[in-house]
Amino acid sequence: MHILILGAAGMVGRKLTDRLIADGRLGNTDITRLTLQDVVAPAKPKTSIPTETVTSDFSDPKTAPALVASKPDVIFHLAAIVSGEAEADFDKGYRINLDGTRYLIDAIRAVGGGYKPRLVFTSSIAVFGAPFPDKIGDEFFHTPLTSYGTQKSICELLIADYTRKGLLDGISIRLPTICVRPGAPNKAASGFFSNIMREPLVGKEAILPVSDDVRHWVASPRSATGFLMHAGTMDLAAMGPRRNFSMPGMSVTVGEQIAALERVAGKNVVARIKREADPTIVGIVSGWPRDFDTARALKLGFTTAEKSFDDLLRIHIEDELGGKFVD
Amino acid sequence: MHILILGAAGMVGRKLTDRLIADGRLGNTDITRLTLQDVVAPAKPKTSIPTETVTSDFSDPKTAPALVASKPDVIFHLAAIVSGEAEADFDKGYRINLDGTRYLIDAIRAVGGGYKPRLVFTSSIAVFGAPFPDKIGDEFFHTPLTSYGTQKSICELLIADYTRKGLLDGISIRLPTICVRPGAPNKAASGFFSNIMREPLVGKEAILPVSDDVRHWVASPRSATGFLMHAGTMDLAAMGPRRNFSMPGMSVTVGEQIAALERVAGKNVVARIKREADPTIVGIVSGWPRDFDTARALKLGFTTAEKSFDDLLRIHIEDELGGKFVD
Repeated sequence: MHILILGAAGMVGRKLTDRLIADGRLGNTDITRLTLQDVVAPAKPKTSIPTETVTSDFSDPKTAPALVASKPDVIFHLAAIVSGEAEADFDKGYRINLDGTRYLIDAIRAVGGGYKPRLVFTSSIAVFGAPFPDKIGDEFFHTPLTSYGTQKSICELLIADYTRKGLLDGISIRLPTICVRPGAPNKAASGFFSNIMREPLVGKEAILPVSDDVRHWVASPRSATGFLMHAGTMDLAAMGPRRNFSMPGMSVTVGEQIAALERVAGKNVVARIKREADPTIVGIVSGWPRDFDTARALKLGFTTAEKSFDDLLRIHIEDELGGKFVD
Repeated sequence: MHILILGAAGMVGRKLTDRLIADGRLGNTDITRLTLQDVVAPAKPKTSIPTETVTSDFSDPKTAPALVASKPDVIFHLAAIVSGEAEADFDKGYRINLDGTRYLIDAIRAVGGGYKPRLVFTSSIAVFGAPFPDKIGDEFFHTPLTSYGTQKSICELLIADYTRKGLLDGISIRLPTICVRPGAPNKAASGFFSNIMREPLVGKEAILPVSDDVRHWVASPRSATGFLMHAGTMDLAAMGPRRNFSMPGMSVTVGEQIAALERVAGKNVVARIKREADPTIVGIVSGWPRDFDTARALKLGFTTAEKSFDDLLRIHIEDELGGKFVD
């Protein structure tokens, strides 16, 4: 099986690559070839699986045809510019997040000869903007409040239509906010949800800019990888034409996160969280989804790796910190 | 006020043109210029309002910039290829119904200098495909089962995003099935809903291919014109970012239509309806929306011209038949 990952250099792309290489297979099929693409050069992984890295611009109409010419069996499409950048650079957002995806699906169609790969598209809960119900169900409509969310919504619709027409075999999965996000603190408005967990565990202070009762929808990086793997192999034939799914996750408040951190890592770690209210971030976060009813995804076998936020922290300590933290 | 109608030669475009010319104004503002565009030459109407007709291809990237260069104040965007054609010719559907609309909104944006016209986009209840609730509410999600419905859904999302970014002032209205549709019988799967009313009223037979209990969602051509006029003038500023609306209509069964026809025009007229079941049409129609809860649109002042199907028939006889029918 030949697997292509678009956007392989990003956090989720790297996690997925590591997992595919560790398993050596996807579902019941051995991986015989791996192509890793991104706009910045993806790291060449250590593996016996023949692996090619490609540095190319997803918004260039020539990029997608070159990548699908070798007929990868499964394509993980993680390529995107993020919410803040798509909002700041309107043209770039549409060029990469919308046009790029159209180039991809049209390139797949153009291959012909019955070529019909599984296409796993990472959508986002940014397809929803307030006001919405406390718990967003599987039939709530697209209400994006950002260009990024608009572009993700449109790609969901395109992939469903191309799938219905038999031109590819697509599925769009809306990932929760990834927490604890590894790496350096980032400046995304959502960054603090991870920062206040990750930084204290390595002995550093972190700023909490909102109140403890702010609720949001999260899943671990390990869960995100699991969703992608499942979407890459599950039987979609019986699913019918609705190919977009909000992924399972956990609805937690910041206060519940902190209580879990204290149970898992103790008072000294929690003491490194500094409360400094930031009205701008409070405003942005107030429009984000807080909870979901993901009945369809659960029925189709999507599951999170963690059953509680304590679990999620233990997974972070195990996967990212070699099992240790700074007391 | 300068008004541009895209797709002006179609049935709804001609009704709208007639109404604008009859009124001489839109809302409280006199119409000082009218531009009528279509891919087939729109008829040059008799009016003292300076009127230009333009024959051009909406899928040509040069078409929209030429049309918006003169900065029309209100743009009615009715240009589209219909459901059946978009399904049969996949590329043409995307080229006209999606790319054409993007050319338009990008052309508006490119004018610059604070140009921000009211853009009224005619969407469709084809953005919904079964299964759905008996009554589709304002928050039900996009579930198109045709490329046409997909393209309409995407345009709704684009227009909402461009509006949110302050690049235009857009609204998308989803028209019910228009009934009684004037003109010759057409071969659309939905044609019979109108045929079985229109043809018997002029002394001709018409085929009913489904059973009497088939329910659907309709509004008169006069209502459709009224929705467009209202959408062209209403205050949208307070509406917020959700710019797509299912329009009010009437949920009726074929049997209720026929009973109304008997009340309005008598037994002789009804006797011209011939029942000949067509399993293909039965199948297609079974996936169509049957009823809506259009609370948002009603609250914003959208209203139908008819209060009953009897009304709707009387409107047809008045508007299309000069008040007379063949007994």
